[in-house]
Amino acid sequence: MAGTNHTEAEIIAEGGPAIILVGAQLGENIGKAVRAMYNFGLTDLRLVAPRDGWPNPAAVPAAAGADIVLEQARVFATTAEAIADLSHVYATTARRRDMIKTVVTPRKCADLMRGHADKGLKCGLLFGPEKAGLKNDDVALADAIVSVPLNPAFASINLAQAVILLSYEWFQAGSDQPESYTPTLETTPASSDDLQMLFDHMERELTEAGYFRHAQRRATMRRNLRNIFKRSDLTREEVSTLRGVVKALATGGGPGWLAEKAEKEKQAKKDAD
Amino acid sequence: MAGTNHTEAEIIAEGGPAIILVGAQLGENIGKAVRAMYNFGLTDLRLVAPRDGWPNPAAVPAAAGADIVLEQARVFATTAEAIADLSHVYATTARRRDMIKTVVTPRKCADLMRGHADKGLKCGLLFGPEKAGLKNDDVALADAIVSVPLNPAFASINLAQAVILLSYEWFQAGSDQPESYTPTLETTPASSDDLQMLFDHMERELTEAGYFRHAQRRATMRRNLRNIFKRSDLTREEVSTLRGVVKALATGGGPGWLAEKAEKEKQAKKDAD
Repeated sequence: MAGTNHTEAEIIAEGGPAIILVGAQLGENIGKAVRAMYNFGLTDLRLVAPRDGWPNPAAVPAAAGADIVLEQARVFATTAEAIADLSHVYATTARRRDMIKTVVTPRKCADLMRGHADKGLKCGLLFGPEKAGLKNDDVALADAIVSVPLNPAFASINLAQAVILLSYEWFQAGSDQPESYTPTLETTPASSDDLQMLFDHMERELTEAGYFRHAQRRATMRRNLRNIFKRSDLTREEVSTLRGVVKALATGGGPGWLAEKAEKEKQAKKDAD
Repeated sequence: MAGTNHTEAEIIAEGGPAIILVGAQLGENIGKAVRAMYNFGLTDLRLVAPRDGWPNPAAVPAAAGADIVLEQARVFATTAEAIADLSHVYATTARRRDMIKTVVTPRKCADLMRGHADKGLKCGLLFGPEKAGLKNDDVALADAIVSVPLNPAFASINLAQAVILLSYEWFQAGSDQPESYTPTLETTPASSDDLQMLFDHMERELTEAGYFRHAQRRATMRRNLRNIFKRSDLTREEVSTLRGVVKALATGGGPGWLAEKAEKEKQAKKDAD
């Protein structure tokens, strides 16, 4: 699915934070971070003193085609140089630091960065080396610390995972995808009349089959059945399918169901022995 | 940091969804999914017909110590068997399906699952094989589709990433970590009196240094300086540090600053030539 719509991607990338990897060790991890960045529309990668130099061939396969990010990556000698043009910087760290600095969740960080981006301000996210994490001197350069809430019994996540989660939150904070929707495809919602005809058909067949034999419960059972099918938001096509089902069961299905029931009872008796 | 607090982890895992990997191909991906699950307190892994069988030694290093999840993993022949005891199932898929089925974001899905868990109902998340994703017959077993909003130009994420994001959202929906807080460590917030003494000290030295030479702007500049330091929510210890800074600058710093300024101007002139 990659590379189908670069124009839209460029619009999405606008205003996104720079991802600053300080002292990253493995090219593969840089590549994974690159893939995650571009999955969520980020393109500004800055590498501070990457251990194995740059470009690093090991990053390419892991980036899985996010070449635009690899090609634009810039290398800096120090964190201070890498963030020189940024107005707001957030330091990701799992360890508690002995600093009086505000700690935010990834979601809150994304909200803050969207707010800055709306004013035309450029932000950045700092990530430390795989083993040690950011040095305190780098954390001190940041406006706030970002900390991912994790299972306290297993709280180590890797570099690429941290980049994924922060990039994901950035993108979600600007996504206009509704939190829930139901596609209707090429169908038409069933009208009340369609449903009434289904109910009439079903109840007629059920009456004939002796299903409503307790007259006093008939009204309740009818209401229950209607509620079940009303909850499904049926289309006209699905009503037609269900009428076919009722017809098939009423004419040819009876013996089949009975046979299945008899078989199950036989099996249950056998299991009990 | 792994393994420090299993009791808390067990509490966290309670009510969490089962992660059901259908036809997963690579053991390494299963291991990465396992690590992500346990990072976010999930322990119920179910494998439907894993390509390379189970247990799979390739999963172990990638799981990075989340042995509790590996050991409890269960294998099923079909998706229907794997979800038999679950009341609500969500199918993760990136591709659009030709089905009338509600599509939710990972966040909405997490909210729904927390709601079910609160009623004691067990949920599950279905993930398809690496290349092809879930089959339509598996999707049809689900209550809803979960779709991660992604950069439309680069919308392919891998199996482990999908598991990370869904597990992350599950955990966040139940996390009581405040979205923003500032640790105060062992410090005491500065009192108004502490601040007043700092302001008095600074303004006395600034007056002496001729900083307030435009009498009509003096009031504004004083207010601006006070606002700068009020915004920092200073501790008593930090006020003490700042008073030391003022003292050092006032007594010994002047010439140093002047020398630095002269050096900068010299350099700028040289660069311009």
